[in-house]
Amino acid sequence: MTHTLTLPRSVEWKETFISLLDQQLLPNTVEYIKLHTLQDVWDAIVTLKVRGAPAIGITAAFGLALSLQNYDVQTIEEFKKKLHADKEFLASSRPTAVNLFWALERVVNSINNAISINEAKTLVIHEAIQIQAEDEATCYRIGDYALSLFNKHDRVMTICNAGSIATAYYGTALAPFHISKERDIPLKVFACETRPVLQGSRLTAWELQKSGVDVTLITDSMAAHTIKTKGINAIIVGADRIAANGDTANKIGTYGLALLAKAFNIPFYVAAPKSTFDLSIASGAEIPIEERSAKEITHIGDVQVAPDNISVYNPAFDVTPSEFITAIITEHGIIHSPSVDTIKLVLN
Amino acid sequence: MTHTLTLPRSVEWKETFISLLDQQLLPNTVEYIKLHTLQDVWDAIVTLKVRGAPAIGITAAFGLALSLQNYDVQTIEEFKKKLHADKEFLASSRPTAVNLFWALERVVNSINNAISINEAKTLVIHEAIQIQAEDEATCYRIGDYALSLFNKHDRVMTICNAGSIATAYYGTALAPFHISKERDIPLKVFACETRPVLQGSRLTAWELQKSGVDVTLITDSMAAHTIKTKGINAIIVGADRIAANGDTANKIGTYGLALLAKAFNIPFYVAAPKSTFDLSIASGAEIPIEERSAKEITHIGDVQVAPDNISVYNPAFDVTPSEFITAIITEHGIIHSPSVDTIKLVLN
Repeated sequence: MTHTLTLPRSVEWKETFISLLDQQLLPNTVEYIKLHTLQDVWDAIVTLKVRGAPAIGITAAFGLALSLQNYDVQTIEEFKKKLHADKEFLASSRPTAVNLFWALERVVNSINNAISINEAKTLVIHEAIQIQAEDEATCYRIGDYALSLFNKHDRVMTICNAGSIATAYYGTALAPFHISKERDIPLKVFACETRPVLQGSRLTAWELQKSGVDVTLITDSMAAHTIKTKGINAIIVGADRIAANGDTANKIGTYGLALLAKAFNIPFYVAAPKSTFDLSIASGAEIPIEERSAKEITHIGDVQVAPDNISVYNPAFDVTPSEFITAIITEHGIIHSPSVDTIKLVLN
Repeated sequence: MTHTLTLPRSVEWKETFISLLDQQLLPNTVEYIKLHTLQDVWDAIVTLKVRGAPAIGITAAFGLALSLQNYDVQTIEEFKKKLHADKEFLASSRPTAVNLFWALERVVNSINNAISINEAKTLVIHEAIQIQAEDEATCYRIGDYALSLFNKHDRVMTICNAGSIATAYYGTALAPFHISKERDIPLKVFACETRPVLQGSRLTAWELQKSGVDVTLITDSMAAHTIKTKGINAIIVGADRIAANGDTANKIGTYGLALLAKAFNIPFYVAAPKSTFDLSIASGAEIPIEERSAKEITHIGDVQVAPDNISVYNPAFDVTPSEFITAIITEHGIIHSPSVDTIKLVLN
């Protein structure tokens, strides 16, 4: 039996506007804002109303499709110039977002051979829709592969939000749970709250609850005790960047979970699309770790929870060595015991 | 060279009142409240202005010393009856606090052989002061032993607040750091914030900063990455209850740190006085784990950080099996490789 998920999409193309779930307001307020102009799209990306590399790329692609409706141009050359300028503008919204540039380039390149303005308009819209559809298909395949690794009634732990709202749909690490709901396969998820920014409690708990998935929230510090007392069967996480040898950068806290998985002898899975792999770097040692503002730890909302002038260490990510990763789940298949060779084998 | 610590005491006997650091207001407000009556003392315990088993016991003992100043009695028998009633009243402030009952009993028993009211008054005050002095001496011995396990410039991680403000002075797990400051031995401490109640950021960071100890605050999820990248040399924690075989119940998150210590091959120490041992229970399996309110996780201050009606698992403690504990540090000496036999050997 297949159910239709009750989980809404975070980005939707509505012809004259983009409907966007404002992730900054979750979980207390579920609000879909309407983006009508290129500036609206730029603002939404800058103010983090949309987050997750794929969701940002999709939103930007739709941003170009939105903007061209108001082009006052007479020739295809003028059209291309306008589109290029819009691309440059949106690319400036988050200068480190690889997926954003990739999506914008793809849309712009789709009209390389266009000979009329009307053809170009259709191509841009089509390409943006295509990017979203492909990402959803990718997530679905990842989820399908991941689900094959779980048994009915398994208890699975996750951290951060590698979720549907960060992608076109389904997400990566959370895809198997949404698909399990579609297929009526009972799983139990334990979501780590994911300090300091609380993506686990604010986003993952909300998203899985919305899908009707059985989800329980814990603090990150409860992982070991929960694995032991609740009989956790596996841990699954997303990834920000995967090196050629399988070393995986992901939200801070991931590495600790991988070590706990090993201590308790349960599998530790990474779910990520091929685009997350950076085969130009040999290992995780080459991945720089961003340090973020002390205030993320010393304050929660407006509440100060640490003394003034306290020293803080706030790395945003950590790197899990591939030896602690049981498998990496991609849209091209499952990479068991990830290494330079096994990764090449599946991705090529 | 020995320095006098700049860290204040959390409980002080001031003849006509008790001066008490209001721990509920830390770290934003450092306020010493004056307790003038038995009711004030009862309120302070109930509203968690004082926390930590030893500090609660000391406050209650001083509470009896305070109250008797207003006794309108003519005979020693009337005095004893009054004191007994006061003891029963204070014991009702926290019905599960073993150390509270122990301290109250000890004060009441100190006047068993008193023959005059004046003698009884002196004995009560003397006993209360004695309880505080003995606790400070115990903590100092624990800290002294613990410090012998560290080298100059070591980087040490801790969780929760097994600190001076929870005891007469110095604390247990934090005692070596305060003493290192007195002796001018440089150590670097990394304090885990300790979700959900944030004793690490609110109390430990404040207390060590107050002493001038080099302390850096991290979230609990950063422990693995910090151990690796900052070269942590050891982890030290307090204890709520230690079974005959050395299994140790302590603040949630402790067990995970012990497993990380093993993964990184660094020592994991528990610092606790003899009174924390419960030799009547064979192992940690007999220690019930209290579950606390979901709101501790779903809300921080008044800020809601998780969706309405989300399932939450909130165990207050976890149990670290003794096999993961390198040593337990007591006022009677260091118990290496804790077991039924090694524990008996040091404690007896």
